[in-house]
Amino acid sequence: MTDVAVLGSTGYTALELLKILARHPGVRVTALTTRQTDRPHIASIHPSLTGLFDLCAEDLSPAEVAARAEVVFCCLPHGTSMAAVPELLAAGARVVDLSADYRLDDPAVYAEWYGLEHTDAARMTETVYGLPELSGLPEKIADAKLVANPGCYTSTSILGLAPLLEAGLIEPGGIVVDAKSGTSGAGRSPKLGTLYCEVNESFSAYAVGTHRHQPEIDEVLSKATGRDVSVLFTPHLVPMDRGILCTMYANPTGDVTVEGLIETAQTYYKGKHFVRVVEHLPATKHVAHTNYCDVTYRVAGGKVIALSATDNLLKGASGVAVQNLNLMLGADEAVGLL
Amino acid sequence: MTDVAVLGSTGYTALELLKILARHPGVRVTALTTRQTDRPHIASIHPSLTGLFDLCAEDLSPAEVAARAEVVFCCLPHGTSMAAVPELLAAGARVVDLSADYRLDDPAVYAEWYGLEHTDAARMTETVYGLPELSGLPEKIADAKLVANPGCYTSTSILGLAPLLEAGLIEPGGIVVDAKSGTSGAGRSPKLGTLYCEVNESFSAYAVGTHRHQPEIDEVLSKATGRDVSVLFTPHLVPMDRGILCTMYANPTGDVTVEGLIETAQTYYKGKHFVRVVEHLPATKHVAHTNYCDVTYRVAGGKVIALSATDNLLKGASGVAVQNLNLMLGADEAVGLL
Amino acid sequence: MTDVAVLGSTGYTALELLKILARHPGVRVTALTTRQTDRPHIASIHPSLTGLFDLCAEDLSPAEVAARAEVVFCCLPHGTSMAAVPELLAAGARVVDLSADYRLDDPAVYAEWYGLEHTDAARMTETVYGLPELSGLPEKIADAKLVANPGCYTSTSILGLAPLLEAGLIEPGGIVVDAKSGTSGAGRSPKLGTLYCEVNESFSAYAVGTHRHQPEIDEVLSKATGRDVSVLFTPHLVPMDRGILCTMYANPTGDVTVEGLIETAQTYYKGKHFVRVVEHLPATKHVAHTNYCDVTYRVAGGKVIALSATDNLLKGASGVAVQNLNLMLGADEAVGLL
Amino acid sequence: MTDVAVLGSTGYTALELLKILARHPGVRVTALTTRQTDRPHIASIHPSLTGLFDLCAEDLSPAEVAARAEVVFCCLPHGTSMAAVPELLAAGARVVDLSADYRLDDPAVYAEWYGLEHTDAARMTETVYGLPELSGLPEKIADAKLVANPGCYTSTSILGLAPLLEAGLIEPGGIVVDAKSGTSGAGRSPKLGTLYCEVNESFSAYAVGTHRHQPEIDEVLSKATGRDVSVLFTPHLVPMDRGILCTMYANPTGDVTVEGLIETAQTYYKGKHFVRVVEHLPATKHVAHTNYCDVTYRVAGGKVIALSATDNLLKGASGVAVQNLNLMLGADEAVGLL
Repeated sequence: MTDVAVLGSTGYTALELLKILARHPGVRVTALTTRQTDRPHIASIHPSLTGLFDLCAEDLSPAEVAARAEVVFCCLPHGTSMAAVPELLAAGARVVDLSADYRLDDPAVYAEWYGLEHTDAARMTETVYGLPELSGLPEKIADAKLVANPGCYTSTSILGLAPLLEAGLIEPGGIVVDAKSGTSGAGRSPKLGTLYCEVNESFSAYAVGTHRHQPEIDEVLSKATGRDVSVLFTPHLVPMDRGILCTMYANPTGDVTVEGLIETAQTYYKGKHFVRVVEHLPATKHVAHTNYCDVTYRVAGGKVIALSATDNLLKGASGVAVQNLNLMLGADEAVGLL
Repeated sequence: MTDVAVLGSTGYTALELLKILARHPGVRVTALTTRQTDRPHIASIHPSLTGLFDLCAEDLSPAEVAARAEVVFCCLPHGTSMAAVPELLAAGARVVDLSADYRLDDPAVYAEWYGLEHTDAARMTETVYGLPELSGLPEKIADAKLVANPGCYTSTSILGLAPLLEAGLIEPGGIVVDAKSGTSGAGRSPKLGTLYCEVNESFSAYAVGTHRHQPEIDEVLSKATGRDVSVLFTPHLVPMDRGILCTMYANPTGDVTVEGLIETAQTYYKGKHFVRVVEHLPATKHVAHTNYCDVTYRVAGGKVIALSATDNLLKGASGVAVQNLNLMLGADEAVGLL
Repeated sequence: MTDVAVLGSTGYTALELLKILARHPGVRVTALTTRQTDRPHIASIHPSLTGLFDLCAEDLSPAEVAARAEVVFCCLPHGTSMAAVPELLAAGARVVDLSADYRLDDPAVYAEWYGLEHTDAARMTETVYGLPELSGLPEKIADAKLVANPGCYTSTSILGLAPLLEAGLIEPGGIVVDAKSGTSGAGRSPKLGTLYCEVNESFSAYAVGTHRHQPEIDEVLSKATGRDVSVLFTPHLVPMDRGILCTMYANPTGDVTVEGLIETAQTYYKGKHFVRVVEHLPATKHVAHTNYCDVTYRVAGGKVIALSATDNLLKGASGVAVQNLNLMLGADEAVGLL
Repeated sequence: MTDVAVLGSTGYTALELLKILARHPGVRVTALTTRQTDRPHIASIHPSLTGLFDLCAEDLSPAEVAARAEVVFCCLPHGTSMAAVPELLAAGARVVDLSADYRLDDPAVYAEWYGLEHTDAARMTETVYGLPELSGLPEKIADAKLVANPGCYTSTSILGLAPLLEAGLIEPGGIVVDAKSGTSGAGRSPKLGTLYCEVNESFSAYAVGTHRHQPEIDEVLSKATGRDVSVLFTPHLVPMDRGILCTMYANPTGDVTVEGLIETAQTYYKGKHFVRVVEHLPATKHVAHTNYCDVTYRVAGGKVIALSATDNLLKGASGVAVQNLNLMLGADEAVGLL
């Protein structure tokens, strides 16, 4: 039984994480934090957790958290996380960081896209990227002190493109990633743009070519495949709670067939429990409330079209975080996730 | 051509009001207000109004507004409205107040349910209640300086119950009003409870027995029907933008039939364009984006069941506001509303 | 490891049942049926089950099913189920019937409300009603050959009312059950009324006073509490996938307080894992994708108001079906359901 | 006052058309058809039309319809329309055909994409395409006997791309049209895929590279701009009633700026009431329930990104149909549409 803690417990990723941890047979949740100082019971923050935990969210320092937990999930916003993580590690905890603070290698890229100087820049290159379906990563995650949990759009895009890039079947440049996400990806802080009556019965693009997951996709795919990958990333907001679908257009390097593309992906993901290479077109509903990523391919109009779907809160955030935890603990990656 | 203005132009009722006014042949919108001091163009506040108005929202005093407009729609929150209305009237404007400030007669009831002392209490009994389907009201509205536009739940409930109460077919006490509303009724200010991911895929009651429309229903129905009406009002939040359905349970005073109840309502609403007494069960979608209220009746389990549906932003707010404007201007009540 | 089968595998209750069975540690699914004769793979019927089962849905007779499974879940429509169940039992299987065919005791009541003569009427009174939170039922379920799984509206209503009726705190007559359900309760057969564009952005009542769950609520509550319970039941369709909220109005027999009502329910449900007596107002989202029923009470306008919420597909159908299975197998009722 | 009729009155496009015609000051609806032979009242087919029309839908021949109406809107499915249109024209009616039967010029292309031989092939090249924002078309529409009303995806795509193609700012080949539509585009016939519980909380692509609007986009854009345009078209289904957003990726022919692209479109659409060239990113909600198409442009990743939004039932179907009617009658194109 491993003691774990959650830093930043009021948002949707924390909620989904706690639901998984409640049924995970190998962990015990020992600390939850919040900036609120009145120690709210976790069931008053998230009524759906009533009866699952008898814990209050506390205004604890990273050191206090590390004193209670062996592994800490950091569900803080970017910028805040890089202040807490060094203290957690110094106090001996292992960390799965769900923020963006340790996903990129280059502090200059971080500064450009996040508008902040990174205050723990030296650690950026030492961090392990927590996408266990990429070659070589599961072993590194198993030994890691600090895992940078991937962005939701990022992992969904990467899982569709990586097999084709690694096999050299598509050009690494000029890839269009047209991505669509449910609204939970925008967080639980009240904002005009995420009010029900703004989102419902509407569909729109946002942050066209300027979304922060774009450099993350480029960097991770380039490292994973040894090519200089560059994508144009266009996110859209879908009137639904959860789910991401990426429709991706790439130029083939030679003759390709749907069967060949699917076979390439099946080979790449052999033994990977949470990627399902399917023949039908993925729908977010097929993967909602699961840790699966469904992937398929089409060929049309001279392009390869890769389609991938995840639940942005699970495979895109809290599910893969527990997958990483399992690997860090030497357990089967699927524990608590089926 | 009548010059009109809208006080408080950033919310959903103002948006719907402006959409109607844009196609109303008899009015010209001359002023819009906001507390923001940077004079935002109305199309930047409500992008759907692009091309319909070339007006900025300004931080104007009531007197400045009254100098530009003959009739002013007050879309301010309760408490704020009663500060502006006396100044508007003093400056010679006629006012349709969409807030709750002038709906009740009794300042003590106002203070109890709204938690505020009324600062313009003397005017409360002089105000005309703007529900033109109730007997005697159209004539009063035509002459009014100040019309108190009804609450959305209130008018929907009243339009279902009034014919039966007036005819003495149901007991005035012990009526249960189980009401369900789309989310636009909760306004456009960012709040946790109206975020998309809180409302979507959820259904819940709120303010059980404590909602401010309850005393308004009681007072208006009692005055309109000469009986001491008392309802138990339970509102619910529906994951949709707009629409109210009220399911109301009353004890019959004698033998009743569905046919008889429908006929009673048809007689009561004869010549009233915007109430449709129907035989099928109303659905909010049948009245969405219209100024209609659909009403029907059933008899079961020893109870009379009255069902009524409106679009809460139109017949429940901005539609009836324009209906009142039309009456105030001596025009057909339906101008701009079909 | 117990072999189980599912009769009628194309609908939403079968889908949810299979998701639970996939992670249930004590069962193996050995047969799935359909009237289609082309043996479709279950993943082609329900793409979200891809990778979870390698089974085809077959056009099997009840005897063939019973030869493969110890316990059979019957997800057939009413009328069809009563043809299959006698054969399943005769062949030695135990059955959890999710249809309405064995819920009522009286074949005349069945004939009146379902418009069919019951062809296995003798068995109606011998069947155990599968709502394990009612006194005496868990023991009977443990020994049962045939469990009649409750209707979704029925169990949600009953779980809110039973404690107060048993304690004599409310009158057994004149109870209004104003119920609201997500659309999955209407099944997966294509019909105009359940098309997306008919349901979305709409809210309406249906089957007012004529819904088949009304006599079931009356009969089960009367038997469970020893009183002559009679409710007026009004269902409504909510634009969401899943969830039921019942708002119920009853006349108190004497002085009541919210605290007293809550305490009565807490005592009644002591040791029952899946009913959470809460102080806040339940929302369907709090119980969605779980087997919980959340219950609370209010007092207003001279009425007791009971509010209860479930996921109609889980606690209202497939979740409680597995809870019954667990009891039949002598296991903890919560296995596979947390 | 012009007498008009609607062939095929049970679907969503007919419903929206009738709502517009009800408030159009220059027309009178004199006939509605259906294949049902029991003469259902139009309000029983579409309850939201209660009180707007006192007409029954009848099983009339085209000649009978033409005897009652000067202009006929044909809301029949493709394949059926080409049987009725010749008879309507022969009987002297003018026709706005909302089906796909007369949109393409080439019967071979029609046969390939629709899987049918065209039975009125000679007329295909004589028909006027009803998109009044394209150069030269308003004049042709004014004189037309038969107008082929555009597909919803088609017009939304074309309105975003035409100005840039005409100005030679983007390459005519290799254009990706990633399109997203609300569910009303799929029609009102009950099908598994458009059930509420299949569509809601889901997002998916369909008909990737095989959708019938693809050749229509290619042909119309090629004719309108004199270039050999070829797009890859990928439609997606959005969990909402109405609205289309197209996100389109094209290769610039030289240096481009957002300002320059917007200016090009503003010039192209000068004097066109129903296209709004905006600077913000369009959302379907901004144009829902209107006849507007909002268009804007971005430049990123070496691509030009064109974004356009319409209400698929209005500017994408019934709104533009009335716009065409107005032109055919010599009236202002906006009558009844504001």
